[in-house]
Amino acid sequence: MPVQLCEVGPRDGFQFEDQFIPTAMKAEVIEALADAGVRRIQVTSFVHPEKVPQMKDAGELVERLPQREGVTYAGLALNQRGLERLCDTGLEQADLSIATNDRHSRDNAGMSAAEAADEAEAMTRWALERGRSVQVGFQTVFGYQEPGDMPLETITALAERFAPFPLESLSLADTTGMANPQMTRRRVEAVREAAPGVPLVLHLHDTRGLGLANVCAALEAGVERFDTSLAGMGGCPFVHGAAGNIATEDTAYLFEQIGRETGVDYRRVAAASRRVEDVLDKRFPGKLHRLPVTMSDE
Amino acid sequence: MPVQLCEVGPRDGFQFEDQFIPTAMKAEVIEALADAGVRRIQVTSFVHPEKVPQMKDAGELVERLPQREGVTYAGLALNQRGLERLCDTGLEQADLSIATNDRHSRDNAGMSAAEAADEAEAMTRWALERGRSVQVGFQTVFGYQEPGDMPLETITALAERFAPFPLESLSLADTTGMANPQMTRRRVEAVREAAPGVPLVLHLHDTRGLGLANVCAALEAGVERFDTSLAGMGGCPFVHGAAGNIATEDTAYLFEQIGRETGVDYRRVAAASRRVEDVLDKRFPGKLHRLPVTMSDE
Repeated sequence: MPVQLCEVGPRDGFQFEDQFIPTAMKAEVIEALADAGVRRIQVTSFVHPEKVPQMKDAGELVERLPQREGVTYAGLALNQRGLERLCDTGLEQADLSIATNDRHSRDNAGMSAAEAADEAEAMTRWALERGRSVQVGFQTVFGYQEPGDMPLETITALAERFAPFPLESLSLADTTGMANPQMTRRRVEAVREAAPGVPLVLHLHDTRGLGLANVCAALEAGVERFDTSLAGMGGCPFVHGAAGNIATEDTAYLFEQIGRETGVDYRRVAAASRRVEDVLDKRFPGKLHRLPVTMSDE
Repeated sequence: MPVQLCEVGPRDGFQFEDQFIPTAMKAEVIEALADAGVRRIQVTSFVHPEKVPQMKDAGELVERLPQREGVTYAGLALNQRGLERLCDTGLEQADLSIATNDRHSRDNAGMSAAEAADEAEAMTRWALERGRSVQVGFQTVFGYQEPGDMPLETITALAERFAPFPLESLSLADTTGMANPQMTRRRVEAVREAAPGVPLVLHLHDTRGLGLANVCAALEAGVERFDTSLAGMGGCPFVHGAAGNIATEDTAYLFEQIGRETGVDYRRVAAASRRVEDVLDKRFPGKLHRLPVTMSDE
C-alpha cells in the first residue's frame, strides 16, 4: 500500500527563515517538489503579513503555482479571516490548525483552547459549505512543555468532535517534537478509535531525533500519510536552533528501503534541498541531501 | 530489563577530528561520560600513529583514565601489533574489528577479508589466553557500497566461526549507515541464530537518519547493547560531512521515554557534548545537546 508524503517545507520550513525568500524562488522549489513526485504540498499560510512576513506573498505565490496533474496544493489558515483569503485565491484545499493546549492557545491566538476549537468548527463548516476540501490539524498532540503533558482525552474529545465532518484528513502534530514511538502508537490508535474512518496524517518534528523512529511506529499503527519538509527545514517555535520537520528525502528513503511506495524520488528532493541551502546560505539538518548518492545525476 | 549504552565517541568520534584533542581533554570527556552513568567506554584505538594521529596518545590516555567502579574501558585493536600495545597498557577489554567486505579489507588493511578473519581469530585466541575480555566486531554488516550488498551468509558464517569463543560480545557495525529497520531486525535475528548466547552489540551510524529507528527495530529483536557517541560525533569514512554514530544523549533519551533503563543521564552527556563543541569550535549532529532541557542544571 502506498504511503503519502505531504510536503510542508514551503510553509512550516520557510516560515522560520528571517530572510525573505523571493516568490519566484518559492514557486521554483514547489515545482521541483512536484516534479520529484510529491502529490500534496502545503504551499503557504494565510496569516497576518506583519506577524509572519515570510508569508506576505501568499496570494501572489498561489497565482504562480505550476499546474501539475494529480498535485494538490494546500494553504494553511489559522482564523476565519485567513480562511477567507485562502478561498479567495482559489485554493481547493484548506488546512486548519488548532492549538489544543490552553496556554499555548492564549499565547498564540489570544483565545482559550475551547474557543479555538469552536472557531475551527465554524471554519470547517464554512469551508465545506463552499466546496473546499478541509484538513483539521491538532497542535502539540504529544506534549506542550513536557512529553505527554497533553491529556490524551483532550485529543480524543477533539477528534470525536471533528469526526462527523467529511474531512479530507485529520492531522496530529508533534509541534514540539515530544513524541516517542510508544506514545505515537498509543495516541494514533486512540484517535483512530475516536474518529474511525477519518484519514490520519502525522506531522512530526525531529527536535529530539526521534522523528523517523516515530514514523515507523505510526506506520505499524496504520498511518499512511506523513507531513515532511525538504532538507528537514523548519524548527520548533519554542526552541531556537532546534531541528525541524522530518526531512522529505530522508523519509522517502526510509520508505523505499522498507519496500513502501511513496512515488517520491528522494534524489530530486535532495537536489531541491541543496538549491534552497545555496540560496539561503544555510545548512539544514536532513541527512540524505548531504550524501553523494543524491548528487549523482546533477 | 536495562539497556547498555557503550560510548565510542572518544575513539570513533575523535578519530574523525583533524585537530588534535589534548590528552587531558580526552580524559576529561571520558570522566564526564563515566560520571553521567556510561558503564562501558571505548577510549582509544591502537593504530599506527602516522595513520591516525589523533590516536597517537593511546598509551598515555589509558594512564590518565579516571578510576570508576563498574566502568569498563575498552581499546580497539585492528591487528596483532595494536593488540599487543593494548595489552601492554593494562586495559582489560580488547575490542577487535574485522572488515567483512573483501574490497574494503584490501583497501584498508591490505589483506583479503578471509585473511582478516584468520588474523582476528588468532588475535582472539591470543588475547583470551592472556586473560583479556574480547569483543569481536564485524564491519559493514548492513552494506558496503549499497544497502544490503553484504551477503547475510558472509556475516552469519563469521558469527558461527567466532561463536565458540567465550566473547564478551559480538558487535555488528553499520559502518556506512546503510541499515534500515527491516534489515536490522532480519540480520540481528540471523546472527543470533548463528551465534546463540553471544551478547550482541549494535554499532549504528546515523548517516541516512535511520539510526534511532534502527535502534527500535533492534530492541524488538532483543538487542540490549548499543554503541553510541556523544553529540553524534564521528562520521562515515566514505562520505565527507556525513553524520556520525547515533548520539549517546539522544539514544539515552529515547530509552528513558519508552521506559527502558540505561543508567545514563542524558543531561550530563549533553553537557559534555557542548564542552567538546566549544573546545573544537564545531557543531555535531546530535539533537538533545542543542535543547534547553539539557542546559538547565549548568
